[in-house]
Amino acid sequence: MRFHVLTLFPGMVEAALGESILGRASQKGLVEFSAVDIRSYTENRHNRVDDYTYGGGAGMLMQAQPVFDCCSDVQAQITERLGRPARVLYMSPLGPVFDQQMAKELAQEEELILLCGHYEGIDARALEEIGVEEVSIGDFVLTGGELPALMIIDAVSRMIPGVLGNTDSADTDSFMNGLLEYPQYSRPAVWHGKEVPPVLLSGDHARVDEWRFEQSLAITKERRPDLYEKFVQDNPEIMEERRRRIERAKRLEERRR
Amino acid sequence: MRFHVLTLFPGMVEAALGESILGRASQKGLVEFSAVDIRSYTENRHNRVDDYTYGGGAGMLMQAQPVFDCCSDVQAQITERLGRPARVLYMSPLGPVFDQQMAKELAQEEELILLCGHYEGIDARALEEIGVEEVSIGDFVLTGGELPALMIIDAVSRMIPGVLGNTDSADTDSFMNGLLEYPQYSRPAVWHGKEVPPVLLSGDHARVDEWRFEQSLAITKERRPDLYEKFVQDNPEIMEERRRRIERAKRLEERRR
Repeated sequence: MRFHVLTLFPGMVEAALGESILGRASQKGLVEFSAVDIRSYTENRHNRVDDYTYGGGAGMLMQAQPVFDCCSDVQAQITERLGRPARVLYMSPLGPVFDQQMAKELAQEEELILLCGHYEGIDARALEEIGVEEVSIGDFVLTGGELPALMIIDAVSRMIPGVLGNTDSADTDSFMNGLLEYPQYSRPAVWHGKEVPPVLLSGDHARVDEWRFEQSLAITKERRPDLYEKFVQDNPEIMEERRRRIERAKRLEERRR
Repeated sequence: MRFHVLTLFPGMVEAALGESILGRASQKGLVEFSAVDIRSYTENRHNRVDDYTYGGGAGMLMQAQPVFDCCSDVQAQITERLGRPARVLYMSPLGPVFDQQMAKELAQEEELILLCGHYEGIDARALEEIGVEEVSIGDFVLTGGELPALMIIDAVSRMIPGVLGNTDSADTDSFMNGLLEYPQYSRPAVWHGKEVPPVLLSGDHARVDEWRFEQSLAITKERRPDLYEKFVQDNPEIMEERRRRIERAKRLEERRR
């Protein structure tokens, strides 16, 4: 999968994508990143890409010409490879809010363009002419679209097989099954007087799975009742099986007494 | 304001914070960033910071010792300056979702620690012992907490006076007044056959403000009915004034006919 980040700060984007898990994934050839400098497309003789906003107001706006020409050039290359242009995501508070479902869906694409605005944003005519899809990363304001773009690349890339060390590990994370993640522990078994919950040391996989599921369920119910309700509605069999398991355990307990 | 990012990837964090508006803000001494390498605190002779998860499962977990000791060291320095430790934000899907209100509130702090997990996360005992505040950036999963931490730093920093070129420009953005932002245009007045809306060239500030407010209201109503409803409820005077203005305009229009 190829990601094209159109930005005024290609150095920052490259530095972030060169490190950690994403850096290894691109070295292995599983993903490909390119940071394209919008400034190199400006026709302004002083190399400017921004100007005042019509109607007044503080801050500068990125002009239509360099943004549009940069995107057209990248799309021309993509069209040569794929026979069609790629989707263009524009990082903007006006779009639907990015979530795990969107990440899964985007992981199906072969190439993706991420357009990053800066300052006050981009001339509305360029966005219309390009036909951007607006994507928001949340209800807050940033100085530019670079960090949201990097985050989308991270969330999408990690679902590509082979990018994470172990393909299992993407499936057990928060949200993958609709619940928040259970607490986790590593060596030593006792640290600062705090013990790891004994069940995790029991070697009994079924009990470990049950404990983790109960922890996930409880923390999701407490912290995110919206996600909890959705999980219960979407997974009637799992909840029914859980109800039976708890009843069985109760009966066993009573018999023991 | 000082931000301390505790991370396994200090190079990436420093590269991102050195660029653009945040880089300039730190050169001007308005904010200070430090990326603290958690790995340098490990007592493991092979310099490891992670280990398998008790109870089994894919992926590695960051161990309690290096994380806790790193945080304690940074807190000791902060306590010397402030007479009290700083708040510690841990980037985790389990926390409340970050928004503009939280950004405003965090901008009041003098120092802030942002703890970034990687791999499968951090041993739950260290998080408890440190007393972290969990903060989520949205309902999706990332390979690490670095990008969310950078985003929080960006959103908070831009509200510190002097960080943006013009202090006005933070107030007119999306969410600052509870509405999404109106479309913006810059030179030239005609580009690819598309004209800038004439009112923006009129020089009539009152009409420009009205147009922008109507655009914000319309786009918020269409894209984010939740924010629209909240704005209408929270701002009865503004909405009443708007109603009167529209009626006045109608009467004028009728008289003209």
